[in-house]
Amino acid sequence: MSGFVSLVGAGPGDPDLLTLRAVRRLQEADLVLYDALVSPEAVALATGAQRFSVGKRASRPSMPQETIHRLMIRGARLGKKVVRLKGGDPFVFGRGGEEALALVAARVPFEVVPGITSAVAAAALAGIPVTHRGVASGFAVLSGHAPSAWAPALASLAPNALTVVILMGVATRAAIASQLLERGWGPNTPTAVLLGVSTPEAAAWTGALSDLGDAPLPDTGTPGTIVIGSVVEIGAAIGSSLRTDAVAHRASEAR
Amino acid sequence: MSGFVSLVGAGPGDPDLLTLRAVRRLQEADLVLYDALVSPEAVALATGAQRFSVGKRASRPSMPQETIHRLMIRGARLGKKVVRLKGGDPFVFGRGGEEALALVAARVPFEVVPGITSAVAAAALAGIPVTHRGVASGFAVLSGHAPSAWAPALASLAPNALTVVILMGVATRAAIASQLLERGWGPNTPTAVLLGVSTPEAAAWTGALSDLGDAPLPDTGTPGTIVIGSVVEIGAAIGSSLRTDAVAHRASEAR
Repeated sequence: MSGFVSLVGAGPGDPDLLTLRAVRRLQEADLVLYDALVSPEAVALATGAQRFSVGKRASRPSMPQETIHRLMIRGARLGKKVVRLKGGDPFVFGRGGEEALALVAARVPFEVVPGITSAVAAAALAGIPVTHRGVASGFAVLSGHAPSAWAPALASLAPNALTVVILMGVATRAAIASQLLERGWGPNTPTAVLLGVSTPEAAAWTGALSDLGDAPLPDTGTPGTIVIGSVVEIGAAIGSSLRTDAVAHRASEAR
Repeated sequence: MSGFVSLVGAGPGDPDLLTLRAVRRLQEADLVLYDALVSPEAVALATGAQRFSVGKRASRPSMPQETIHRLMIRGARLGKKVVRLKGGDPFVFGRGGEEALALVAARVPFEVVPGITSAVAAAALAGIPVTHRGVASGFAVLSGHAPSAWAPALASLAPNALTVVILMGVATRAAIASQLLERGWGPNTPTAVLLGVSTPEAAAWTGALSDLGDAPLPDTGTPGTIVIGSVVEIGAAIGSSLRTDAVAHRASEAR
């Protein structure tokens, strides 16, 4: 009897943005190991499973990565259908590759179920197209978590070329903005900070890159996505129409 | 009576990777305007809708973008629930921003429903993590369609820093490889071409960047994603375990 591990992306937060496959894996799961940022509604779909939070929370340290590996492997060896439920996409930051390699080493069969990453959806849900003909012919995605990672990554980008999307960079936004300005990015480069995307706590700040460091943001602990580039200006036109209408559509759904 | 337009991402191909919201919008739609790369199964979910292909196909020219705008706007003004169904994510290439701006100008209410973009999912489904601690702290996404767009975008990236993901670049892969090598990318940089991701036609080539131009690829017309960077090597270890097991899991589902 052989178990199976599914590394599943839960998307940006709203359970409505789960994929059909993610829903099915949750419904069939025997064991779910979920991150803190995953919505309770998504976890609740796993009605037949033991469910454990293995994620980082503000108040307590996260479970060591090796413990997560051990729990996945042990579950599979007991013949369980294990779902490792991760925010966004399992392979965009978040150490999904390390978890996959641990499963390879343990010879545990597994799959990857892609999820909607905030790297794209945060901007889209705010009306910002990360690419736009004649404005941005591509985009770069970085993590703002560790300066040792983002500093060289930012330095590798020529100023004002691609749209830059930074996940987990709200706390380090002042240092990120300083480095970009030093590198020659225009101080007026349109910039957005998108918080709690696709959740009821959604909020946004837009302004100039030179104001990013001092941007007054609610300190809610909700994750944020920073988008830098001229597409943010296009998003301002789209987003202002978008927001109201999406609400109207949801209201009509509720009837 | 006011209609509504949903710009919906259909994901990389497999209808199992549609989001719950995308499925619901299709089921409720009165009119669906879909791209050629969207799977027939996804379109078939719109059982109550008129359905029109507006996409490019190899054999005939695509519908002018303005015609697509007109069809969306006319449908909404007739009070219809219109779904504009696009491959991948509506705002990653594919001119979703232009369609949104046309709707803003026409004062038609609309929303954006993000989809799984091949920019992330192609690699993930092949076992390649586009980011990996100590290997790649970010990734850049470009379109290989028009040299006027990709040439300056590629030139803006420092060699060997971020993972590079190129959509729609199979036909131009020789020119892309040449430019990267001239820019100083290592000729042995691990490179993958992922074709027909998440469809029964899925196929992959991996090799060195210097061999990308001559990579023997089936000329099936299926879209391809190119991934360049050391993460491709990590993906080789993960992907070889992954593929078989995902098949095994699907087989167990079918029983």
